[in-house]
Parts: sequence; C-alpha cells; structure tokens
Amino acid sequence: MLTVKRLDIADARILIKGASEKANEIGVPMCIAITDESGNLIAFERMDGGKVSSAFVAQDKAFTAAAARKATHEYNAANVPGNLAFGIHTEVGGKLSTVGGGLPVVVDGDVVGGIGLSSGTPQQDMDCAQAGIDYFLQNRG
Amino acid sequence: MLTVKRLDIADARILIKGASEKANEIGVPMCIAITDESGNLIAFERMDGGKVSSAFVAQDKAFTAAAARKATHEYNAANVPGNLAFGIHTEVGGKLSTVGGGLPVVVDGDVVGGIGLSSGTPQQDMDCAQAGIDYFLQNRG
Amino acid sequence: MLTVKRLDIADARILIKGASEKANEIGVPMCIAITDESGNLIAFERMDGGKVSSAFVAQDKAFTAAAARKATHEYNAANVPGNLAFGIHTEVGGKLSTVGGGLPVVVDGDVVGGIGLSSGTPQQDMDCAQAGIDYFLQNRG
Amino acid sequence: MLTVKRLDIADARILIKGASEKANEIGVPMCIAITDESGNLIAFERMDGGKVSSAFVAQDKAFTAAAARKATHEYNAANVPGNLAFGIHTEVGGKLSTVGGGLPVVVDGDVVGGIGLSSGTPQQDMDCAQAGIDYFLQNRG
Repeated sequence: MLTVKRLDIADARILIKGASEKANEIGVPMCIAITDESGNLIAFERMDGGKVSSAFVAQDKAFTAAAARKATHEYNAANVPGNLAFGIHTEVGGKLSTVGGGLPVVVDGDVVGGIGLSSGTPQQDMDCAQAGIDYFLQNRG
Repeated sequence: MLTVKRLDIADARILIKGASEKANEIGVPMCIAITDESGNLIAFERMDGGKVSSAFVAQDKAFTAAAARKATHEYNAANVPGNLAFGIHTEVGGKLSTVGGGLPVVVDGDVVGGIGLSSGTPQQDMDCAQAGIDYFLQNRG
Repeated sequence: MLTVKRLDIADARILIKGASEKANEIGVPMCIAITDESGNLIAFERMDGGKVSSAFVAQDKAFTAAAARKATHEYNAANVPGNLAFGIHTEVGGKLSTVGGGLPVVVDGDVVGGIGLSSGTPQQDMDCAQAGIDYFLQNRG
Repeated sequence: MLTVKRLDIADARILIKGASEKANEIGVPMCIAITDESGNLIAFERMDGGKVSSAFVAQDKAFTAAAARKATHEYNAANVPGNLAFGIHTEVGGKLSTVGGGLPVVVDGDVVGGIGLSSGTPQQDMDCAQAGIDYFLQNRG
C-alpha cells in the first residue's frame, strides 16, 4: 500500500489567494485551477473578466503539472520539432498542456498537487502560478 | 482469410518484466503498456512512482508502434514542419504518438504487438522499451 | 494536507491473480483492470480470449468504482428512468460505467482503488471482481 | 503467441455484395461496414442514397459485433433499465452500439470479423447484415 500526500481544500484556497493577488497586481483577471497530485480538480476560480476558454486551459495546465510532475513550460521547451518529446501536447486527449502557466505544487519533495493559470500571456500566467505557490509555502498551516 | 500472429498474456508479462528490470536499473519508475498487433491493450503496469499522465501516454505509444508498425521515435523524426508527415500526432484522436518510447514487437518478421514506456525522458523510455524487447526475444518459450 | 492510501503494484497483481483464478474456474477469459483510488490505471491484464471491447469497459468499471467509491452494479440499480440518478452513465465522457463488474477496493474503511472485470455476463464479471477482492484481503502483506 | 483468423479484403467484398443485394431487393440504400476481428475497418461502402450519419453508425455496429463478439441486437435486449448491462451503449467512447444491425462474422467457431449495416430500420439493417453473412458463407473460397 502506498501513502500519498495531497492538497486539501484549505491549501487550494491559499494557492488561489496568492495567485489572484498577483493577478490583481498586474491587472489581468485570471482563471485559476488547483488539482490534486493525480491531476483531478480541487478548486477553481474565474476572476471577473477571466476568459471562458481559459476555464478549460487552466485545468489542463494544472492537470499536466500534477499528473506529469513537471511545469508546463518545461514541456514547452521540449515540445519542439526534432526533440524526441515533440507531439506530447496531443496526449491524454489533448489535455497534456505544453503552454506555460502550470506548475506542480511540491511539499517536502513530493508533488502534492498542481496549479494552472490562464487568461494572460503565458509569462503572466507563469508569474501568477509561481506567486500562488510562493504564497502557499509561506502561509500554509 | 488472413492468419495473424499476436502476443499472448504470457508474452506480455515477459515484455513487462524485461522493461521494468531496466527501469529499476536506471532508477526511473515507469508506466509500461503492451498491446496486440492491432494496438489493443493486453497488459499494463504502473510501477510504484510512475506518472499518472504516463498511464495514458504509454498506452498511446504502444498503440502507435503496433497499429502503425513503426517506432514512435521514427514518427518523431518525420514529424517536423516541412516534412509531408508533419502533424501526424493529432491523428486517431491524438492517440498516434510521436514521442519516443513506443516500439513494435517483431517476431519472424511480423509485428505481433507493441510496447510503450512513459515516465522518464523519451530516451529513457526508449531504452526501457528496447530492454523489454531484448528480454522477450531471449526468454519467450 | 490530506493523506491518501493507495494500492501499490504488488497489491494490484494480487487482485488480478484472485480475479483471474476465478475466471479460469468458471471458464470465461476476462479483461481485468486495477485502478488507484483516483481511478487511474495501475495494472491491466487481458486473459487470452478476453474481448477487445472489454479492454476499455474493464477500465471504465474500475475507474467508476474507485473514483465514485461505489460498485457499478449499485449505479446500475439507480440508473433507471424516473430515478434522480438516471442518465449518470453518460457522465465523465461516458466513462462512468453503470454495468455490473466494477467494485471499489476497501481497506480499513478507505477506498484505496478499484477493480473492473469485463468479458462475461455482468454477473460473471461481478463474481470475478469479488473473487479478486476476497483473494486480496486474504493475501496482502 | 496466439494465432488469429481474420477476414481479408476479398472476404469483405463478398460480405458487402451479399448485404447490398439484399438492400437493393428491399429498396433501402445502406451504409455497410466490415471490420476485422478486433473491430478495425476493412471495407466500407455507402450505397447511393445511404445516410451520412449511418456512415458512422454502421462502423460502430461492426466494431461492436466483432470486438465484443456479440450481435448488437443482443446487446439491445440486455440494455434495458434494471438489467445489469444497462448503460453499456456509452462505453468505448460511445462506440459500443446497442442498435440492431451489427453481427459477428463467425467461421469454424471463431469470430473473424464484424458486419454493420445502417440506414434502414434496425430490422432492415439486421436483415441485410444477415444476408451478407449468408452470402459470404456460401460463396467464400
């Protein structure tokens, strides 16, 4: 039997708070998805003004970051023609996202969940995802 | 009427054993999928620590290698802009994988199945898939 | 933070062994899928003679039993016109199975995975799934 | 290693010829799909006047009959609320058809393929599918 650590809903709210504060700071309303370590949704918020399509994209980014235990921008770097990983973005029914903005949430060396942001540029999405994680690591109980 | 040769479940277990031994040797827990010659699943194992997303990707790689009778890294080499095969990775609902790690299983010149590995780098996945085939060819009845 | 218990690959193999022994006893080759508590595949075997379509159905049954923490035959009983649950079988992209043969694997009151059988009648599938669980509970370490 | 018997393209043409002659006889232009024993398409014809939607439905019927080794009208009989198989029609991404008109093609006790008809009433589809099989069994080499 394995024992797995997983974000709870209180953790997820902290992650969203950190990410949305950064989104407010840069003035870009975001969709923010938090998944557990298997990539299944725990919490989601579409800030007023967040994009409809991003409600899907944010979930895919968070899924990927958690289930594959890798930042989506790292997959992005590998997903170039000629690289042996090229084409990975159509896997899992297209849910495996290679668009920047998804980060695994790591606690004590274990991936315990994923955060995915979407609505801004990929760099803005990445910055807000990172802000969510930074805030979480400083403020979790 | 055609007569087709196909891996049986005992063959599939041998392939998994060879691949997982190599995975243990390199210290990367893998998802390992074995399909028949038509790309349908015969056996699958997710080693403890294998990635959730790789449970899907490994199956797609094995499907591709068997059903298309081609290693996924060969498709990868062809899947570059300007090549007439570019874009092939979205076919079959995205199940046609161009990520290295899927190999056809060939016996006496016939493709009798496919093996797909996922969780490591594509090169690690390829090495473990090849180890599975090598072990199978030496140890099948 | 939550702590989750999950079947490991050794557990999955025991479940498959118990189910396949029962399948051999009744003379019906089966597809057998084992998922973790989130419904993601850990192990799968298609016994020689198992149906191709059942390779998919078995996975859906195991997914449902684990992810919904409910036997698929219990969903079946509720999935009748007029019942408020009617239509549940098209959920999760049709992966939520209401066909008998999927059972949650429960240890110390926690759902730690799912087992799904397919190729026989639903009752045969259910019997073999139960045999897998019985064998597991008697033989796990 | 398993050895599997499978329809070849000449067999598939004979099946289509028998089914289309019956379709002409009853005055209903049909879509006719022939799959191999794993449910993958070998041949397909849409008679002039066959329905566009039936180009899909016929393939699903033939897939089901072959991959599940069961006539779709038999699944239809089991797919009623209260039966343990109810809900089976959404499996395999909805490809598992419980609409009459799909029959396994059996030679010497082995399912070697499937035939699926669509465009008429289910009973007309079933009659033409059966006519295809009857013609095939009398005229194959």
